[in-house]
Amino acid sequence: MLYIGVDLGGTGIKVGVVNEKGEILSKGSTPTRKERPYQEVIADIAGLCRRMVKQAGVRMEDIASIGVGVPGICNSKTGVIPFCTNLGWHEVPFVAEMRRHIDLPVHVDNDATVAGFAESIAGVSAGTESSVFITLGTGVGGGIVIHGRPYSGAHGVGSEIGHMIIAMDGEPCTCGNYGCFERYASATAIIREAKKAVAEHPESQIMVRCGGNPEKINAKIVIDCAKEGDPTAKQVFDFYIKGLAHGIISIINVLDPEVIVLGGGVSMAGDFLLDAVRRAVEPLVFYKTMPHAAIELARLGADAGIIGAALLGK
Amino acid sequence: MLYIGVDLGGTGIKVGVVNEKGEILSKGSTPTRKERPYQEVIADIAGLCRRMVKQAGVRMEDIASIGVGVPGICNSKTGVIPFCTNLGWHEVPFVAEMRRHIDLPVHVDNDATVAGFAESIAGVSAGTESSVFITLGTGVGGGIVIHGRPYSGAHGVGSEIGHMIIAMDGEPCTCGNYGCFERYASATAIIREAKKAVAEHPESQIMVRCGGNPEKINAKIVIDCAKEGDPTAKQVFDFYIKGLAHGIISIINVLDPEVIVLGGGVSMAGDFLLDAVRRAVEPLVFYKTMPHAAIELARLGADAGIIGAALLGK
Repeated sequence: MLYIGVDLGGTGIKVGVVNEKGEILSKGSTPTRKERPYQEVIADIAGLCRRMVKQAGVRMEDIASIGVGVPGICNSKTGVIPFCTNLGWHEVPFVAEMRRHIDLPVHVDNDATVAGFAESIAGVSAGTESSVFITLGTGVGGGIVIHGRPYSGAHGVGSEIGHMIIAMDGEPCTCGNYGCFERYASATAIIREAKKAVAEHPESQIMVRCGGNPEKINAKIVIDCAKEGDPTAKQVFDFYIKGLAHGIISIINVLDPEVIVLGGGVSMAGDFLLDAVRRAVEPLVFYKTMPHAAIELARLGADAGIIGAALLGK
Repeated sequence: MLYIGVDLGGTGIKVGVVNEKGEILSKGSTPTRKERPYQEVIADIAGLCRRMVKQAGVRMEDIASIGVGVPGICNSKTGVIPFCTNLGWHEVPFVAEMRRHIDLPVHVDNDATVAGFAESIAGVSAGTESSVFITLGTGVGGGIVIHGRPYSGAHGVGSEIGHMIIAMDGEPCTCGNYGCFERYASATAIIREAKKAVAEHPESQIMVRCGGNPEKINAKIVIDCAKEGDPTAKQVFDFYIKGLAHGIISIINVLDPEVIVLGGGVSMAGDFLLDAVRRAVEPLVFYKTMPHAAIELARLGADAGIIGAALLGK
């Protein structure tokens, strides 16, 4: 059986036809143009679905279902999207609207959740029953897989791993609380700490790389400088790893998954990041002699959204 | 069908015969005397099981299985108890040893996990598919129920909610880390903070209640004084509620259960505690207009262990 996966983002819509193993047979994209009424966006999604089915050389009858990953929260029971800040959507009856165009079962779930699900079927955590996917980007998103299925909680507001509180009274968060995991484990956290650090250490290589303008600092610059041994960058990186490790320990102590998968922009730092996180997590583990979650880098990259959304119907 | 539930503690063993609804038909107890070889403890458990079956007026053939709640971690797949600090047990082949005495399926799980499971079948969270049970005692334990079943993670080391880190670099914990939830939400935390507070405010009613000896402070004294309006006790209580609320928010943002159930000694403070926690959690909720977990007090009290252990076989 085949499945259509839709990765709905604030900028672009990506659609692919995917088989049971999570292999992509065809894929394409179109701009979201989110300022339009949602009905038009959904009509475009449906059109792209039809084109991708054609491009894959299959028929609509071969498709079991359509799955959609949304950058917001979803009520997977009613098919309504109560909130999607990125798209400016509020109480959008997504599934009903989609079915006006294509008469197939439609599943919706959060984009980080479906990306984690994709990794658990066709990526680094393939074959595991439980995993937690952490996207280390501008913010920190999460995808929980339990008993081999995505888990978004009872009201669809779970797996907001970025808003676990790891530092009560710590850094102020966009959510209104203080000390959320996101404030320590996102690219934004690296940039914030680097700006503070270069103010005290203008001699840092970070300043050279950003052309002397701290506003141009990004996470890659800081991590590259840390790799090359710049002491200021190293200090920022170490603090980042400490926060990340503390959040991972909370996940291990509560959920004890088989695998924790690191994705998102910061995970592009590869083994330099992975080795540092593993080293930092080890001494914090509660039951020292018991096995615990493996920590791995995501493998599916930008295709995870399409694959995971498609496999929601599996 | 009927089930035997065993609540195995460091001091006493409680055994009951329980029906499918979680009602106890008979119950009894015997001292653990944990200094003995584990074989003797398990022989006593088996003997007590037989007596309780008789006391319930039923036969061994009416029993479907035996479930055991253990104050440590369990490998529910192998039936081995890798660690049980309270009993001084290490790699005890519990299920195999139990079956030498009684030829019935034997299930083992963590004691807080089975207590939470009991509440989800016969207690305050009855009828829900997902709940998180938090025992507020000397430490903080946790029991997670997902899809209507106890969830202890992939390696049996999960649901250690007391060791989520909510305050990086905060209070040192017995586990070796800093800032664990347990250090803010246990009775021990109330006592620690109260001792600090009375050193600065010896005029507090807490000092009167403990006979002028801060070593005699307990959580009940502090909460009773807070109820009566003592400002020092109120300050300690408010800090406690703040820590508890921050841990609950992390649970809501990650697991989004239907219900969070508060049990353990501190929960005896009843509505005074519950109202304060609910008030503190509300402004910290991420999706303000979405429904989130109800927060409730446990209902089954000391019987939760027997009931939940029994129902492991359901």
